[in-house]
Amino acid sequence: MRKFHPLAVAAEKQGKKIYHLNIGQPDLATPPAYFEAVRSFDKRTLAYDASPGNPGLIEAIRRYYKRLDVDLDPRDILVTTGGSEALLLTCLSILDPYTEVIIPEPYYPNYTTFVHAAGGVIRALPTNPWEGYRYAKRERIESLITKNTRAILITNPGNPTGVVLDQAEMRMIADIAKAHDLYLICDEVYREFCYDEKFGVPTMARFADIHENLVIVDSVSKRFSACGARVGCVVTKNKELQQAILKFCQSRLSVATIDQVGAEALYSVDPEFFRRSKEEYRVRRDTLISGLRKIPGLVVEEPMGAFYVMASLPVDDADKFQHWLLESFEDNGDTVMFAPGAPFYETPGKGINEVRIAYVLNREDLSRAIEVLARGIARYQREVMGVSPKALG
Amino acid sequence: MRKFHPLAVAAEKQGKKIYHLNIGQPDLATPPAYFEAVRSFDKRTLAYDASPGNPGLIEAIRRYYKRLDVDLDPRDILVTTGGSEALLLTCLSILDPYTEVIIPEPYYPNYTTFVHAAGGVIRALPTNPWEGYRYAKRERIESLITKNTRAILITNPGNPTGVVLDQAEMRMIADIAKAHDLYLICDEVYREFCYDEKFGVPTMARFADIHENLVIVDSVSKRFSACGARVGCVVTKNKELQQAILKFCQSRLSVATIDQVGAEALYSVDPEFFRRSKEEYRVRRDTLISGLRKIPGLVVEEPMGAFYVMASLPVDDADKFQHWLLESFEDNGDTVMFAPGAPFYETPGKGINEVRIAYVLNREDLSRAIEVLARGIARYQREVMGVSPKALG
Repeated sequence: MRKFHPLAVAAEKQGKKIYHLNIGQPDLATPPAYFEAVRSFDKRTLAYDASPGNPGLIEAIRRYYKRLDVDLDPRDILVTTGGSEALLLTCLSILDPYTEVIIPEPYYPNYTTFVHAAGGVIRALPTNPWEGYRYAKRERIESLITKNTRAILITNPGNPTGVVLDQAEMRMIADIAKAHDLYLICDEVYREFCYDEKFGVPTMARFADIHENLVIVDSVSKRFSACGARVGCVVTKNKELQQAILKFCQSRLSVATIDQVGAEALYSVDPEFFRRSKEEYRVRRDTLISGLRKIPGLVVEEPMGAFYVMASLPVDDADKFQHWLLESFEDNGDTVMFAPGAPFYETPGKGINEVRIAYVLNREDLSRAIEVLARGIARYQREVMGVSPKALG
Repeated sequence: MRKFHPLAVAAEKQGKKIYHLNIGQPDLATPPAYFEAVRSFDKRTLAYDASPGNPGLIEAIRRYYKRLDVDLDPRDILVTTGGSEALLLTCLSILDPYTEVIIPEPYYPNYTTFVHAAGGVIRALPTNPWEGYRYAKRERIESLITKNTRAILITNPGNPTGVVLDQAEMRMIADIAKAHDLYLICDEVYREFCYDEKFGVPTMARFADIHENLVIVDSVSKRFSACGARVGCVVTKNKELQQAILKFCQSRLSVATIDQVGAEALYSVDPEFFRRSKEEYRVRRDTLISGLRKIPGLVVEEPMGAFYVMASLPVDDADKFQHWLLESFEDNGDTVMFAPGAPFYETPGKGINEVRIAYVLNREDLSRAIEVLARGIARYQREVMGVSPKALG
């Protein structure tokens, strides 16, 4: 995803404005409580914090889960340097060389690095754009389980697809993990971003009967628009796994002290903050989807959560198209970036004409970005693919 | 090292005061520049920083190395979440399952976790208290090299021993790495703490001919008394390794944004700060060593760097002695903690009566701690080991 960075720098040097639909960096303001807490830090020595996490932050996370009807013991929470470290330490604790993790594809590409760091292998659970990338299919999942399978890893709500599981689907996946004695690693960092009331604030942690199997990956990054805090956590009631992850936590001593103080303050902000953020993203989603649906030949389903959507573009190759958009295209000085789809797939050859679009721009910029994308597609089809306007209707 | 924590909590509940010689948490004040920079952060959204590190911080680190006569390109520096992440990512990038790393023992116990996370194996280079734990012995090192050896990992100045290599020893170890085509991972986080002028500010990075082999692990934690910042870096000119580590840096997105702003400010503090810190630790070391030398039967060499010393105590078992100090001893309401030696060794059975003492207390507390230790040893010898005062002279 970062290989286009030099081309983007070059395009900007030429005076082009780039609309960034390629990154999941929210533009919403971080609650001021974070910065206020950080500014109030008054110890003279910036010391290590406790390895499992700052006790005040752990208590704040516990209260947050309590509001979701999930009872946690402080020991069930291990604070990590972002959701990223939560995932890395979970993989290092669960996987041995050549053991397998089932992950629905398309998936967040950094999962590959974390699984491979532990010597593990990803078994991709295939989905399709025309099924809206829905992956909760019991037979398909069970057909991938082997004697080497250790875990199922899902992102709910989904990145890059925006898919949200309904209650029956969550229960079914929980049942599979339980029946086959697998870990269920559930990356729920987008939990607060579900755009249909029926989903509420979904979490697998409410299924008490799978507590031995369940690992929740969580983070303040998206929830509070505080990606740079690098504060996340692993939540599990499995004692053996707690011990294994704690050992890694102790080896890296502590998460950044001041950021934990800031993160504790975040968890005390009025839940109204979630409502307003969600409403803002919902409006952006609607803006994006109605715009994309006007582009002839583009296939997209309305995403139900997170702030991403996968779309199948009417171009031969999204990667090649992105190059062209940066190097050979502009619309009144503007161009656009998205994340080409192939890196989100394990299976070679898949996702070639798909893209992930992040709707983290304000509505006005988002509308303009879609307009630029639509014009880019039309011109690329004519000038590069050699498709006549007539053939496109 | 953390298993004594519950006993310590229990002892404190009984009203005992514990002198902590067991942890490497400096008590010196962090330069105010850190907190000032953090407080001045004025962006409304706390966004991810660049994956290789904040460019301003990288430039500050580059200038710091320039003062040490080391020329670095910005790409030679990858900012990490403390020296801990620098070590973990280096191990994950260099080691495959069953490959070997040579490490002089006693060594920092967390190295084990990092090497094992990558599937690697530690080959311990033995040392002895009566040789002052000096490990720069060419034959001994070369005798450990096999076809599976990938790296030599040293800490210079040393934790837990305080050993500092002289120029000839540094050159010799560099030559071994070069001759055998091994990585030389040099953990130099205590570089600014050398108590003899002849060592200056030592760094392997001055040997230009081993740049392809060399990986420097660095951190602001001890240098600036800023452990809770969790800001370190990997320094290497090996392009292939840079790429491998960068891939991991990208997968975890970024180091905490505000702490990098603080760390940049740290590197701008007057080098007089290093001089004053070093002088303070030097006086503490002298206080500690002269106190320890008055304890009959205790074996200790004067450490030349860092703020630790290994000592061999006249007790049967340092671990057992620590239990006893917390549970069954007090001197006027006081007791003392150190780090028992065995966990610093790979070789089973070594370090049983050794301890690591960190001199991170002010002089007055340090003097009292040594007094408590001396009285504890005397009483333990009489009451637990059954040694008569006469036998001890």
